[in-house]
Amino acid sequence: MGLRLLVGQSGGPTAVMNSSLLGVIEAARASPAITAIYGAVDGVEGLLEGQVIDLGRESPTTLRALGRTPAAALGSCRYKLAPGDPDRVLDRLRRLGVDLFVYIGGNDSADTAHLLAERARQTGQELRVIAVPKTIDNDLPITDHCPGYGSIARFVAIALQDAGRDTEAMHRVDPIKIIEVMGRNAGWVAAASTLGKRDPRDPPHLVYLPERPLDLDCFLAEVEATYRRYGHAVIVVSETVRGSDGKLIGAEEEREIRDSFGHHRLVEPARRLALLVEKHLKLRARYDRPGTIQRMSTPCQSETDLIEAYEAGRHAVTALLDGETDRMVILIRPPGPTYRCTYGLAPLAEIANHEKRLPPAFFPEGEAMPTKAFRDYAEPLLGGPLPEYTRLQRFFLTL
Amino acid sequence: MGLRLLVGQSGGPTAVMNSSLLGVIEAARASPAITAIYGAVDGVEGLLEGQVIDLGRESPTTLRALGRTPAAALGSCRYKLAPGDPDRVLDRLRRLGVDLFVYIGGNDSADTAHLLAERARQTGQELRVIAVPKTIDNDLPITDHCPGYGSIARFVAIALQDAGRDTEAMHRVDPIKIIEVMGRNAGWVAAASTLGKRDPRDPPHLVYLPERPLDLDCFLAEVEATYRRYGHAVIVVSETVRGSDGKLIGAEEEREIRDSFGHHRLVEPARRLALLVEKHLKLRARYDRPGTIQRMSTPCQSETDLIEAYEAGRHAVTALLDGETDRMVILIRPPGPTYRCTYGLAPLAEIANHEKRLPPAFFPEGEAMPTKAFRDYAEPLLGGPLPEYTRLQRFFLTL
Repeated sequence: MGLRLLVGQSGGPTAVMNSSLLGVIEAARASPAITAIYGAVDGVEGLLEGQVIDLGRESPTTLRALGRTPAAALGSCRYKLAPGDPDRVLDRLRRLGVDLFVYIGGNDSADTAHLLAERARQTGQELRVIAVPKTIDNDLPITDHCPGYGSIARFVAIALQDAGRDTEAMHRVDPIKIIEVMGRNAGWVAAASTLGKRDPRDPPHLVYLPERPLDLDCFLAEVEATYRRYGHAVIVVSETVRGSDGKLIGAEEEREIRDSFGHHRLVEPARRLALLVEKHLKLRARYDRPGTIQRMSTPCQSETDLIEAYEAGRHAVTALLDGETDRMVILIRPPGPTYRCTYGLAPLAEIANHEKRLPPAFFPEGEAMPTKAFRDYAEPLLGGPLPEYTRLQRFFLTL
Repeated sequence: MGLRLLVGQSGGPTAVMNSSLLGVIEAARASPAITAIYGAVDGVEGLLEGQVIDLGRESPTTLRALGRTPAAALGSCRYKLAPGDPDRVLDRLRRLGVDLFVYIGGNDSADTAHLLAERARQTGQELRVIAVPKTIDNDLPITDHCPGYGSIARFVAIALQDAGRDTEAMHRVDPIKIIEVMGRNAGWVAAASTLGKRDPRDPPHLVYLPERPLDLDCFLAEVEATYRRYGHAVIVVSETVRGSDGKLIGAEEEREIRDSFGHHRLVEPARRLALLVEKHLKLRARYDRPGTIQRMSTPCQSETDLIEAYEAGRHAVTALLDGETDRMVILIRPPGPTYRCTYGLAPLAEIANHEKRLPPAFFPEGEAMPTKAFRDYAEPLLGGPLPEYTRLQRFFLTL
């Protein structure tokens, strides 16, 4: 009797999360040991409700387009298992005859997967659980990087050059621009916004990370100094940047809503800082808030990211067939002059609920920009060169 | 003695505005009659200050990359000529020996170009003036469409599918998403956000245009009905949508700042509507505000738009050499089954300060979505096919 595999997707989606799903499906289809491939609709939340589909019946046409379709084709959730839920999930899986469970997600999903694996072990249920990393935040420990990060990094690196050129051209009208980028408690995305910078004049001129408190007086002084130097200023701010008081900037004036994992939801630091600049510096400021567009951009899907997401999905199935459980697939960068990526496993207990912040070696305290070490780390993940930009040399006539 | 040409850029930049600049420079270089090519830094505002550069000295390397670099390489402005300014500009041009003036811009810039051409005629100055259309708003009359529109149309068409898939996947967490798109008093960009829609489930589900008042009670009812039907709702709102009272939505609570042409600056309708949805429908709502990123996206530059912007620039030089003045280059779509674009001229007086709204034939009052006629109009401007997306067919297991 064959093995039955169930796969689910969880957490905020990415531009390449379905590539991992495709990797799981194709590896499972290729294995003679696996006789059924099921999908949980909307992660464990749908699974608890019994919403399960037969992925084995999906057409080749659908699967062909799946790998490049952004977001989570199975549907996602942010559901924190309540007491009793692990047993309910395990009961569902037992009744479906599921032996193998793949959960594609980030920190919170690793926590869910770990609880299920642990409970199965405690109760003696024959269930193996492997998580596939997915997060634009790039904040999972142990793994070199996370599928989803390369694509959002590509988006923000290009968007900053694009929107920054806009501000440079419009410096007489709107000299200050603040762009709000994602990144929950970690500045990986904010740091990536500098990857298109080739020249001190290039944007961004200032970058504010969640790792460091943003003092509003210092901020205003830095914006003013940048404006005086370049005639305009382009500023990147992480959506979870905190003030000297430890509070999220742009949340304190508004409602604070938290989701079931305790994360803040409506924070608008760019808006708050733009209003502050207008009030105190008397300079016209715009803000851009690309929101979910940044994590989902089809035109900015990194080819490297797509491939690695796919391979991480395949590796999860290989690991399950090897008898592994309670682990997450990790991406490993072998040393050497040329970028390569291999795949391994790490215990979920060491992943779940741990956050990997941007290390000081990549963006030292007191420095304005990330280091060359960060650039060497991040550039290969972009999946190809960035667009080329030029500036006129501007040979002024003396009138 | 040869002719001297001066070119300037004005108004909000676009992703292809430098392609027009390159067209002007290359056509001028190719003409034996033109012996000098100057650039006004920051449009007429810089010109009034005497900031003029010699474009003839720019290197081939710079010019090669110029055509695909977004924004305005000369710098731009939003400067309304004050009494006396036309004479000051004409004096500058006379002292520079400039005979030919090309101004790349939108409605306001056409107004400036017209005032200068008119004043030159009145004072007998030998100056010919041609405007090159540029505006993501696509709101210039007479011309079939405006360079810059095809690229922003491509951006919003893709961004809606991308961000909409995000909401569909996350319907249990944030079921409502409002995306704010550009478009000053005209719904051309908002309408383009539907160009990737292939299925009623596809985003956007609701589109709100500046051409029609948005009644807040109707809005809430429409959002709720959409949510009940699809489990989520993706809504596009134009940044200049007005309420039943005629006031800009999302501006009334905040400061109202106007620029020198009298246009509002800080309006945040998506934010306002998202807060309204949360308050009245008790549904969690997100908003994305791509801001200037949407008009400047290098990855979404339409190849058609790049070529047409370039040719419009070339055509301006041809027209000047033919002795034309006080005209704007227009794009003409010859009838026939295959899209083609030719170039002509229209009097600036018929362009300046006129706005072309989205016609009812493209988006009839009372209809939820634009017509096939709009799609036939807009699709060729996108410069190529949009990404392919798929959905799982979802064969549910009966548990």
